[in-house]
Amino acid sequence: MIFEQLGLIGCGLMGGSFALALKRAGLVKTVVGYSKSPSTTERARKMGVIDVEAPSALLAVSGADIVLIAVPVAATEATLKSIKHLLTPQMLIMDVGSTKRDVVDAARRVLRGGNLGSFVPAHPITGKEVAGVEHADADLYVDKQVILTPIEHTQTKQLKMAIDVWTALGCRVQQMSPEAHDAAFAAVSHLPHLLAFALMNAISGQAQGQDFLSLAGPGFRDFTRIAASDPRVWRDILLANREELLTQSKIFQAHLQTLELMLTNNKSKALEELIVQASSTRAQWQMNQPQD
Amino acid sequence: MIFEQLGLIGCGLMGGSFALALKRAGLVKTVVGYSKSPSTTERARKMGVIDVEAPSALLAVSGADIVLIAVPVAATEATLKSIKHLLTPQMLIMDVGSTKRDVVDAARRVLRGGNLGSFVPAHPITGKEVAGVEHADADLYVDKQVILTPIEHTQTKQLKMAIDVWTALGCRVQQMSPEAHDAAFAAVSHLPHLLAFALMNAISGQAQGQDFLSLAGPGFRDFTRIAASDPRVWRDILLANREELLTQSKIFQAHLQTLELMLTNNKSKALEELIVQASSTRAQWQMNQPQD
Repeated sequence: MIFEQLGLIGCGLMGGSFALALKRAGLVKTVVGYSKSPSTTERARKMGVIDVEAPSALLAVSGADIVLIAVPVAATEATLKSIKHLLTPQMLIMDVGSTKRDVVDAARRVLRGGNLGSFVPAHPITGKEVAGVEHADADLYVDKQVILTPIEHTQTKQLKMAIDVWTALGCRVQQMSPEAHDAAFAAVSHLPHLLAFALMNAISGQAQGQDFLSLAGPGFRDFTRIAASDPRVWRDILLANREELLTQSKIFQAHLQTLELMLTNNKSKALEELIVQASSTRAQWQMNQPQD
Repeated sequence: MIFEQLGLIGCGLMGGSFALALKRAGLVKTVVGYSKSPSTTERARKMGVIDVEAPSALLAVSGADIVLIAVPVAATEATLKSIKHLLTPQMLIMDVGSTKRDVVDAARRVLRGGNLGSFVPAHPITGKEVAGVEHADADLYVDKQVILTPIEHTQTKQLKMAIDVWTALGCRVQQMSPEAHDAAFAAVSHLPHLLAFALMNAISGQAQGQDFLSLAGPGFRDFTRIAASDPRVWRDILLANREELLTQSKIFQAHLQTLELMLTNNKSKALEELIVQASSTRAQWQMNQPQD
């Protein structure tokens, strides 16, 4: 499996790293790249991340046998629209979005027949705290998990190619439905971000907020680390997955309110049992692999 | 300022470390210690943390000129009752509890006159993820913050002595009211613990909870680290400070619900503004010193 040409749309950290990794693995001959900002595309070429600068997303796709859409999730539908006339049922088309139902919905709306079948939605569980092609790294996907969320239209051939590509880059590949993916990440990633944002705003909104913050320590530091995440990226992720996120947030609030009830009614034993449950679940948990 | 005798009640991590630190600083001649468990008291003596094992809290206090109560906050009142007949207005009496209103209330109920005046409530902001005298460490208090919460009865002489002792151990001393202390720690420590407990229970309570957890990564790891805290210690802290904690939890939920409203109504710009606010508050925050 060697591709002639990767059409890369979005030459940032995720896309640029994919191109570098694919090249290093000897899996692609030419990378044609496009980014919304021409200076990014140029930088990507100068860095050797891409070989050819495309003047548009559509032209990046022209002649490609593998296409990676590595744009913010909110831009997925517009990107698909802009490239759909040059997509073919023979291509392998993938994205790297952190949410999957919205991406699949966009694909269903925009793509038809074989083109929809050639699209394999993917979420590689990796990243860095810094963005941009200057941080692109051929190792970004090594030893990481990638979730594929094929739908009923997805061609077996493309799905197998997708599995082979990510495996060749060093990923562990897991498949699940877009719904299961979004529910899981709503619970373990999107909700913690929402809670961390809410906590920071709850504290800073109080008159003594700065005094409170001056007393905060390592527990607070770790708990709120993700509150410093990129606002636009997280605005898009939270909105894209808002349905599952709101469901998880309601479940969370019900558990929080149960704890509050134990506190209000001074139910020491019941409170301890709930904390024991939380504490032992967390103590038994082992991280499978890095993600964010 | 050199003390003749420290009466140490509770020879665990916090108390044992205080005794070691006081000895190393040359500030005390003899340490008489008592723990609820005789084997702990014996171990403390064998380790050289204390010099003399007392058979009761009362006898640990007999003849002391400095007394440290280093027991779980919920045991403070019972401890004060058991030692009150041998306390004197000349002693320096302190605790190390993570909550201060409940400790002060207990002291007001149990102690009278000069004895109440000799009590200086203290919260050294330090700790370890492990408990017990075997982890006692003369360095535990070095370069840490200690909050003193004197009340109107507190004698100036004892307050000054307390400041001198903690300063001599390498602490930065800060004074505030018990109420201000508890409000601040409700916001930056107790509430994050409550939220982390609720999140773990919300996830593990769902049928797919284990599947969700298998996909969790470093953001989740850091956010939920404090959920693995000691259940009994945290049951006591949360209950002891439940009034302030419930207040902070309500403020938090109002901010969470504002975020939810932005999601429900797809208010992208307003959502982004709230995330920018959270993100910039967190990015600007600098930890003053270790605590938990």
